[in-house]
Amino acid sequence: MHAAVSRLSLDEKISLLTGDSFWTTRGVEHAGVEGAVLTDGPHGVRLQTGSADHLGINDSHPATSFPTAAATGSTWDPELLEEMGEALGRESRALGVDVLLGPGVNIKRSPLCGRNFEYFSEDPLLAGALGAGWVRGLQAQGVGASLKHFAANNQETERMRVSAEVDERTLREIYLPAFERVVKDAQPATVMCAYNRINGTYASEHRWLLTDVLRDEWGYDGYVVSDWGAVSNPPAAVAAGLDLTMPAAGPRHAADIRAALDRGDLDEAAIDLAVSRILTVHDRLRAARGETPAVDHDAHHALARRIAAESTVLLANEGGILPLSADEGSIAVIGEFARSPRYQGAGSSHIQPTRLDAALDAIREVAGDVSFVAGFRLDGEADAALVDEAVAAARAARTVVLFLGLPAEDESEGFDRTHIDLPRVQRDLLDAVLAVNERVVVVLSNGSVVSLGCIVGRVPAILEMWLGGQASGSAAADVLFGVAEPAGRLAETIPLRLADNPAHVNFPGSPKKVVYGERVYVGYRWYDRTEREVAFPFGFGLGYTTFELTDVAVSVPDAGRAHAVVEVTVSNTGARDGAEVVQVYVGDPEASVDRPVRELRAFRKVRLAAGESTRVRLELDERAFAFWGETGWTVEPGAFTVEVGTSSRDIVATTEIELDVPPVVPELDLESTIGDWQRHPVGRGVLEGALAAQGGASAAIFADPEISRMMESMPLRTMLGFGGEVDGTSATEALLAQL
Amino acid sequence: MHAAVSRLSLDEKISLLTGDSFWTTRGVEHAGVEGAVLTDGPHGVRLQTGSADHLGINDSHPATSFPTAAATGSTWDPELLEEMGEALGRESRALGVDVLLGPGVNIKRSPLCGRNFEYFSEDPLLAGALGAGWVRGLQAQGVGASLKHFAANNQETERMRVSAEVDERTLREIYLPAFERVVKDAQPATVMCAYNRINGTYASEHRWLLTDVLRDEWGYDGYVVSDWGAVSNPPAAVAAGLDLTMPAAGPRHAADIRAALDRGDLDEAAIDLAVSRILTVHDRLRAARGETPAVDHDAHHALARRIAAESTVLLANEGGILPLSADEGSIAVIGEFARSPRYQGAGSSHIQPTRLDAALDAIREVAGDVSFVAGFRLDGEADAALVDEAVAAARAARTVVLFLGLPAEDESEGFDRTHIDLPRVQRDLLDAVLAVNERVVVVLSNGSVVSLGCIVGRVPAILEMWLGGQASGSAAADVLFGVAEPAGRLAETIPLRLADNPAHVNFPGSPKKVVYGERVYVGYRWYDRTEREVAFPFGFGLGYTTFELTDVAVSVPDAGRAHAVVEVTVSNTGARDGAEVVQVYVGDPEASVDRPVRELRAFRKVRLAAGESTRVRLELDERAFAFWGETGWTVEPGAFTVEVGTSSRDIVATTEIELDVPPVVPELDLESTIGDWQRHPVGRGVLEGALAAQGGASAAIFADPEISRMMESMPLRTMLGFGGEVDGTSATEALLAQL
Repeated sequence: MHAAVSRLSLDEKISLLTGDSFWTTRGVEHAGVEGAVLTDGPHGVRLQTGSADHLGINDSHPATSFPTAAATGSTWDPELLEEMGEALGRESRALGVDVLLGPGVNIKRSPLCGRNFEYFSEDPLLAGALGAGWVRGLQAQGVGASLKHFAANNQETERMRVSAEVDERTLREIYLPAFERVVKDAQPATVMCAYNRINGTYASEHRWLLTDVLRDEWGYDGYVVSDWGAVSNPPAAVAAGLDLTMPAAGPRHAADIRAALDRGDLDEAAIDLAVSRILTVHDRLRAARGETPAVDHDAHHALARRIAAESTVLLANEGGILPLSADEGSIAVIGEFARSPRYQGAGSSHIQPTRLDAALDAIREVAGDVSFVAGFRLDGEADAALVDEAVAAARAARTVVLFLGLPAEDESEGFDRTHIDLPRVQRDLLDAVLAVNERVVVVLSNGSVVSLGCIVGRVPAILEMWLGGQASGSAAADVLFGVAEPAGRLAETIPLRLADNPAHVNFPGSPKKVVYGERVYVGYRWYDRTEREVAFPFGFGLGYTTFELTDVAVSVPDAGRAHAVVEVTVSNTGARDGAEVVQVYVGDPEASVDRPVRELRAFRKVRLAAGESTRVRLELDERAFAFWGETGWTVEPGAFTVEVGTSSRDIVATTEIELDVPPVVPELDLESTIGDWQRHPVGRGVLEGALAAQGGASAAIFADPEISRMMESMPLRTMLGFGGEVDGTSATEALLAQL
Repeated sequence: MHAAVSRLSLDEKISLLTGDSFWTTRGVEHAGVEGAVLTDGPHGVRLQTGSADHLGINDSHPATSFPTAAATGSTWDPELLEEMGEALGRESRALGVDVLLGPGVNIKRSPLCGRNFEYFSEDPLLAGALGAGWVRGLQAQGVGASLKHFAANNQETERMRVSAEVDERTLREIYLPAFERVVKDAQPATVMCAYNRINGTYASEHRWLLTDVLRDEWGYDGYVVSDWGAVSNPPAAVAAGLDLTMPAAGPRHAADIRAALDRGDLDEAAIDLAVSRILTVHDRLRAARGETPAVDHDAHHALARRIAAESTVLLANEGGILPLSADEGSIAVIGEFARSPRYQGAGSSHIQPTRLDAALDAIREVAGDVSFVAGFRLDGEADAALVDEAVAAARAARTVVLFLGLPAEDESEGFDRTHIDLPRVQRDLLDAVLAVNERVVVVLSNGSVVSLGCIVGRVPAILEMWLGGQASGSAAADVLFGVAEPAGRLAETIPLRLADNPAHVNFPGSPKKVVYGERVYVGYRWYDRTEREVAFPFGFGLGYTTFELTDVAVSVPDAGRAHAVVEVTVSNTGARDGAEVVQVYVGDPEASVDRPVRELRAFRKVRLAAGESTRVRLELDERAFAFWGETGWTVEPGAFTVEVGTSSRDIVATTEIELDVPPVVPELDLESTIGDWQRHPVGRGVLEGALAAQGGASAAIFADPEISRMMESMPLRTMLGFGGEVDGTSATEALLAQL
């Protein structure tokens, strides 16, 4: 218990359970309690200028706008995220921010989610590893992270009252592991509970989530803060394990807590504990701080530029058209986004950038005076003159670099998309340009996937740059001209059509309920299991050099333990330096439950100079083989497949291994079926003995395979009781006693 | 209350709550209570010979084996089902059966369900209409039906303890309506509760299902009988509304009931009610009976033959190869099924037929001495000699009639399939035959869909005969030679691949739970919504003549009422008499909830002589436009599409209609979002006034469309309370008071 708690009156303690303003917590001078500043991240520090308006939407202090999570997810590089976290930490310190609200590690369940740009991936391992890197970097500066939005907040529609209807296995295997990894690996100072309900209960009041799982199972020791406005019942929230309600609540908050104490529905001990956690975390952060660091905004801009290039996914590069050479010949740059970058999403993560690089300027720095035409209007209005100009420029140029993407209004916190198409005016522009010049490089800016059916196969090169932050324009030039490698790999599948996506019939749900009907089959897990073709698979990305993965060796040091070691030689076989991401997927073809065909269980981004080789070693721990079974994490003995590749559909080597771990033997009880008894090592003999003794039709059950198969799922006591001569329950109890 | 109840002791009443034997209920002589015989249907009367063994698997008396529901589902002909019900009623009477256990109107959720052959369709309207016809026919003979398996029993795996996890809307729109229709239209004497759990509660103990919905909402007045062995907690079952536990239970049954009475967990009134319902139904049945009818087994066989032809779906007929003419030239009949018919499924519906027609014999009667080769072994063992013989026969013949299908072991009550492929030996045989003769007619016998990828496009004609009962062989000859019309239309979609099916990632679920994650998107509702190609769509079937649907007129007699009338002219434009099924689908493109693209809402099978025309009139009632909303069945005003066609994907005419029914205005409350307030006719003005008075950022919410969209799903009280200056709850209460 924090020492200050005993110096505080009950009223003071209650007052500390909520904010002092939109972005600050309260201080209590006589008790030595200082307030703290919590403000939005996670791609830049959004500290509002002047007094915060009560909706938190005013302008903010300039800060570096780093690439969004949609982009950084594609880096597959936790160390790079750590660097970014460090930079954010320095900027937070300089602005007096104690807690920066991020990272967002929610899973991209549907491409339509309006906030996908703030989330890393459709895969929990990747999202968790990247989030942990970010938190480590930030917190090393003495600034706290706020891991959000906990949990199952996978859409914006009705986000403040919708209930995610999701079974525990799906939560455990898909929606919680990224949180679990960040908590266990990086201990974020705070965890932010989500707005939505989970199976009917608000996340802010979800004791199982906030206490049983987060603290008791995962060992979390920071505090839980509400998403802004997420608390609807303050005493229930405190009782569930929510510590800090943000922003500042009205007078009814204290009154409600008081009333619950009076009624005995809430213990003062729970309040003490919440206050103690808040104060302890803030103290710990302050203690970890050195001198306030000077912020080198130029260096941070350069870092943002490097990360943006590392995030860029080269989807197509026919004939090696990229990188463009300095003497490429005449280039036409077409597309409003080359001049007016689309580089961040709207909502709470919206930053006032310190600088803003336009791709057009950056390209002109390298290639001289290229022509430029906007080509389309951002508001989606058709403009024939712009198209005509674009066609003329395209006709006159050897090469066209065409900047397409989603306008800012299409992607935001607060609402979801209803389709994944690029705007009509952009698709029409592409058609018009292609009619006169086929040497087109498409550069995309969008925070969540768009349908590429109108592009793929029609242009030689496609660069997906996501929302790349304030330096995305210069990063685009770096990649286009080969100054930087397009080192990104897809952190989410790009489907052929919206209708192919796993949540298609269950998004965004009926007004107040959304059924996670696809269960664990999210992202590539869905496309693989349903044997769907995709536009580009999870993990995919080209580069400017070539790699080979050879000599894959998978060993199981101790067959009795669920643990394997994967080794692979990675060689840069091309003429340029570059990076490849080694991906390891595990499958469990013999499982007693349905499981995904493959799941990402380890990965490593490897940077190699031209001609260089290295041996990479990756470990697969117990969880790499486990599913969430009736009694918790379960590894079943038998065969597993270990696949090594460069995407979920570019598997280089498949190795089958055997794990000789102890089998899971479910206990027999009154509900156990004949099948359960037959599979039980002791039960089988007991049952066969009893049936043989009984004779007649019962004894015949195991003799006739057809009847045997038909009876397998019948509870034994039902079968024994049929006909009423003996009592099935008593007879089964007698057999159970023999075990 | 039945008069006998007052003459019975408590022990006697309790004894009447369960069977006297496997197939009979108890009598109590002094009270004038007679026992009754309940036995399996629904495709024939399965009365066991001699004393029933305690598992109910012994031989049974010969009875007509009618086509299974998989076949009769394809008739789309409720009147024909009524004829079949009458015949079953006569056979039941002759054998002294009081209640025949059927029909099964469960929805075909997955093609893998082992019992699909006992169910009619993937569509609830079709299943309900056919089931109602069957019940009307049967009960007209004074024999009771048992509508089964109530409810959400859509798989065999773990059927006795699996919980179907399914939301209420899906139950109401997909899994219950067939039951509802049969109950309301045909009042079955008994309803049989299913083995499984629904959302955690056994169907046998599900008060909401057995009492609230079945009796209170639908007005059911028969009795509820358990599936055999489905009761695990007798007092809970009686309290929930289960009347009769079958088969005979052991002594613990009465002891448990007694104990529950003693504890006060169960009222004697509940027992009286159950006993009264059982006795009332049995009395009513006896009172409805005339003389015991003489059974004309020849006539029933002829009826079975006619129904089998009506059930046959002609899937392909290139070049009009069918019907074969009598002077077809040399014919080779290949396939063991031509000699050993596959005509019924295994399990409780397995019949001892009165006769059994082999297709080979029937074909020889028409076409003389055709050659025959078995071609494959039913046990799946490869047999090169059989294939060689088949190839020789195929080479020597002008035309091959190839009988393929699923061996009996593949389809049964008690277990599910794991794939939908025809056996390897049959696919290899097809390849071998096609290599020497392409003039091949494939005749299929299978109780649930098989993948036709190996057949479609490779042979000119395909006849899907399902499991067509004891006369299926002669019916095959009738259809092949044009004596009968292949008048069936698919009652279930045939997918291209198993992986395309709606339940693919959720079947059969983890050991004790199956998530109905596809919700209402079952069958064609799934394939349409996810834009999947299929092998053959729901409702599809060719014929030997041609039809045209013209002059579609859809009228709304009173725009203020959800009711429409569809009229269409159906013309037989070919040279033969034949039948077409007019299908009417409704869509609701403007709904406030996600809805299927189209749903079957009316249909009519029309028989027309060559050259004949008729005007068909179909009605669409309120339910044809409704979805299950938060407050029950809901019809929203606005546009609906009414499609008339001959399959779910052969739509001849689409008409848009407008319904001017009153809008659904949800009441505003403390949880209502800003969007709710803005959409509310009165609330909108109240809110705007209040925000204008407040000024500042709040007033700006509606001015800035981007912010407005972002805030739409925020509860008003959250927004008003932000910043803590005013209390959001109190402020919202003040606004609610102004409504």
